[in-house]
Amino acid sequence: MSWKPNRSLSISLSKQIADWISQQILTRQWPVGTKLPPQRQLAITLGVNRSTVQEAIDELKAAGILSSKVGSSTYVSNDSWNMLTKQKQPNWQHYIDASIHKPNYQTIQLINHMEQDESIIRLSTGELSPSLLPAEEIQASLQQLPLDGKEIGYSSPQGSLKLRKVLVQYLENKGISTTPDNICIVSGGLQALQLIALGLLETGAVVFQDEFSYLNSVHPFQSFGIQLQGVNSINSNESIMTKRRGKRQNIFYSIPTLHNPTGAIWSLEERQSFYDTCTSMNMPIIEDDVYADLSFHPPPPSLKSIDTDGQVLYIGSVSKTLSPGLRIGWIVAPTPVIKRLADIKMQMDYGSSAFSQEIVSYWLSTGLYEEHVTQLKRELQRRAELMNRQLDKQFSNIATWSSSKGGFYIWLAFTHPIVTTDFFLKLLKQKVLINPGYIYQGKDATHIRLSYAYATDSEMLKGLHILYQEAIQEIQKNF
Amino acid sequence: MSWKPNRSLSISLSKQIADWISQQILTRQWPVGTKLPPQRQLAITLGVNRSTVQEAIDELKAAGILSSKVGSSTYVSNDSWNMLTKQKQPNWQHYIDASIHKPNYQTIQLINHMEQDESIIRLSTGELSPSLLPAEEIQASLQQLPLDGKEIGYSSPQGSLKLRKVLVQYLENKGISTTPDNICIVSGGLQALQLIALGLLETGAVVFQDEFSYLNSVHPFQSFGIQLQGVNSINSNESIMTKRRGKRQNIFYSIPTLHNPTGAIWSLEERQSFYDTCTSMNMPIIEDDVYADLSFHPPPPSLKSIDTDGQVLYIGSVSKTLSPGLRIGWIVAPTPVIKRLADIKMQMDYGSSAFSQEIVSYWLSTGLYEEHVTQLKRELQRRAELMNRQLDKQFSNIATWSSSKGGFYIWLAFTHPIVTTDFFLKLLKQKVLINPGYIYQGKDATHIRLSYAYATDSEMLKGLHILYQEAIQEIQKNF
Repeated sequence: MSWKPNRSLSISLSKQIADWISQQILTRQWPVGTKLPPQRQLAITLGVNRSTVQEAIDELKAAGILSSKVGSSTYVSNDSWNMLTKQKQPNWQHYIDASIHKPNYQTIQLINHMEQDESIIRLSTGELSPSLLPAEEIQASLQQLPLDGKEIGYSSPQGSLKLRKVLVQYLENKGISTTPDNICIVSGGLQALQLIALGLLETGAVVFQDEFSYLNSVHPFQSFGIQLQGVNSINSNESIMTKRRGKRQNIFYSIPTLHNPTGAIWSLEERQSFYDTCTSMNMPIIEDDVYADLSFHPPPPSLKSIDTDGQVLYIGSVSKTLSPGLRIGWIVAPTPVIKRLADIKMQMDYGSSAFSQEIVSYWLSTGLYEEHVTQLKRELQRRAELMNRQLDKQFSNIATWSSSKGGFYIWLAFTHPIVTTDFFLKLLKQKVLINPGYIYQGKDATHIRLSYAYATDSEMLKGLHILYQEAIQEIQKNF
Repeated sequence: MSWKPNRSLSISLSKQIADWISQQILTRQWPVGTKLPPQRQLAITLGVNRSTVQEAIDELKAAGILSSKVGSSTYVSNDSWNMLTKQKQPNWQHYIDASIHKPNYQTIQLINHMEQDESIIRLSTGELSPSLLPAEEIQASLQQLPLDGKEIGYSSPQGSLKLRKVLVQYLENKGISTTPDNICIVSGGLQALQLIALGLLETGAVVFQDEFSYLNSVHPFQSFGIQLQGVNSINSNESIMTKRRGKRQNIFYSIPTLHNPTGAIWSLEERQSFYDTCTSMNMPIIEDDVYADLSFHPPPPSLKSIDTDGQVLYIGSVSKTLSPGLRIGWIVAPTPVIKRLADIKMQMDYGSSAFSQEIVSYWLSTGLYEEHVTQLKRELQRRAELMNRQLDKQFSNIATWSSSKGGFYIWLAFTHPIVTTDFFLKLLKQKVLINPGYIYQGKDATHIRLSYAYATDSEMLKGLHILYQEAIQEIQKNF
């Protein structure tokens, strides 16, 4: 018996001894029924006071691991193994509660979960209907991919050079001049935000954003002690300056084209003014442009295209156009930023799927992508008009909205604050799943982000009907 | 002019005024040559002392943004735009330096970078040679994938149910009984570690690991204030207990089969003893099993297969066997852990590539995977023997090693401490890229992780020859 408790540890000697005895039992060195050495002898061997040994033994007796027979002898109890086994399961909930990253909001978790239920009408989801994804066309194209061993090995830190070259051309067509060195491939827009959070910002940094924002529904920043600050981003000089905090790092998260959730598109003047404001304040800008290809009419130039100063970190993706299952997006930024984000990405997941990168390269470079997007926009516009007509028919007296300019959404504002968790759950009971405004702005109770991109026509009409019935009932009951 | 500086901010009034003036210039409201209002008037309009205005104007004059003509009038200088533009570029390096995540070690960054250079002999890389990846076979299989719109939409939080079902069978064959609910699909083993870091551990938690460890070469834990603690994991009771810190969370990161970098395989007795030790200390275990399928002889049962208590978080992957470009791995763990990790993954990247998941499902369920791995192991064994013979011929007097039991690596220990950054760079100059021991244990200067999985036979022999020459020279020079 060479083990001795260690006096330099913060764990008490008796706890160390109790742990050690438990271990003797678990490693079967002291099987059930083993008679323990007398306490006095144990104390000497372990180099501690007898009272310390007694304390350890009492603790284990109380736990049912040791037992005493008549007299003073102590035995490994029959139940010891069970007791130790029960005890030893890690309390995972305790781990989870203490850990670093925030959980998704309960409503978001519920939405993620309920979206797996195929009987649900998804009236708000940020996802294209499976019928709008070109699954067959993608499958047909797979045979054309120039796959070889090199293509499907680990990727370079910034992602497939082939894809980055293709993206340079794609971005050029949008008025953005860049080079493969200024692009990092990511697994979708959300990962881009996480890389920015971990690779560019410090704890305590402030991310400015619109009052209503997609960012409030996810946590790429908040989990790392980075704060969000809602402001009015249009004509925002004063509002930003007032809320800017001392010497803290600042960055602005913007969605100038087809804003999520509001669907707004900033005018060219608004873009220029916003860019100038941020630039004059030395505040970098994140431009989230993932819906831009779905604008029904050509949108004004992106912030990145007017960025002469390396002020804008531009995010694009094929998740809203070609297929979210590809998990492919990109960041365009000044070289030191890209090198840094690529290095963080290498530490997170060693790059994105090579297969997905090959598919996106192929679709962008052959024109298949553009062809698909043209068709897709046509169908989305038809759906947007259908939803708009239905809203006109039913909701004119209880809500306001703007007709959609593209993308997936109509941002519905009820005349009364009825959009509560309760309301959300009542709809869910009737198999209608909505994204309530409060996931985009905690205090909101009047908005719903409606989507016409997922449900079929008949589901959409049915869902809107149920939504209308519930809304009317809430309004009549409470106002 | 309605703007006024805000006294409740921590930025000085004069700085706020200087910012505001800059902004007037940048937004072209005050074009070049504009004469500023007299200071006295500005002071009144802005509600501050004249000296505050003067301070702001002096600052901007010093920066060349404003200029004074004879007399007291102040003008927007000809150079103002340039000056502001120069000033306004974000200092990205400053952002990067202050940010949360650690950069990769310089050696690792260099390795990641040099691996893109095809003229380099990669004598250490953790990657299969492109010639060993079944690129053609994968391409041929793509046509068989049952892709439809649903398959390529956003994934459920835990990943494709189809793949998880296939994995249950695959794991059953390895003696691990589990269910689809206990599996979360991830983008490779490294992401699994990051999810555990963010989703289960608290800042200040301690991750125990072997003295030499893959974990030291990456930062999924360290960037979030989680500490690593090297111990001798075999017969480790005392060593762990001594280094366990008070009430801090603990977890053990282990690679019982084909350890990275040492190549060791723990015996059944070592596994049982290690499991019992950790269990008795209530210390959860991460079991990284990503090389296990490449064991030349069947390895002892995994820790997970003897885990009756939900103590083990098991990590598997196809990156070392089928293709790293797929970016597909998995975690097997108790349900609350899996739900938590899946929720974090949804917040990071909304799931892994659906295409990659389909390919892995197909390869595992049709037997293609097993067939490929059988062939792959045969070739790896041939290469391992070739490397071993060459080491026997050249290195017997200056190094020791064990012959490989599987996987990619031979862990070479020189008799003298020659493996320094300098040595690494000298080899690189000769186009030989190695993973030096110090990336696995900061103080090491005697080891190299050799790999026989990437270089061709002739490259391997050439690389070993160069390595030998450099090593001899170092030894003769210094010892």
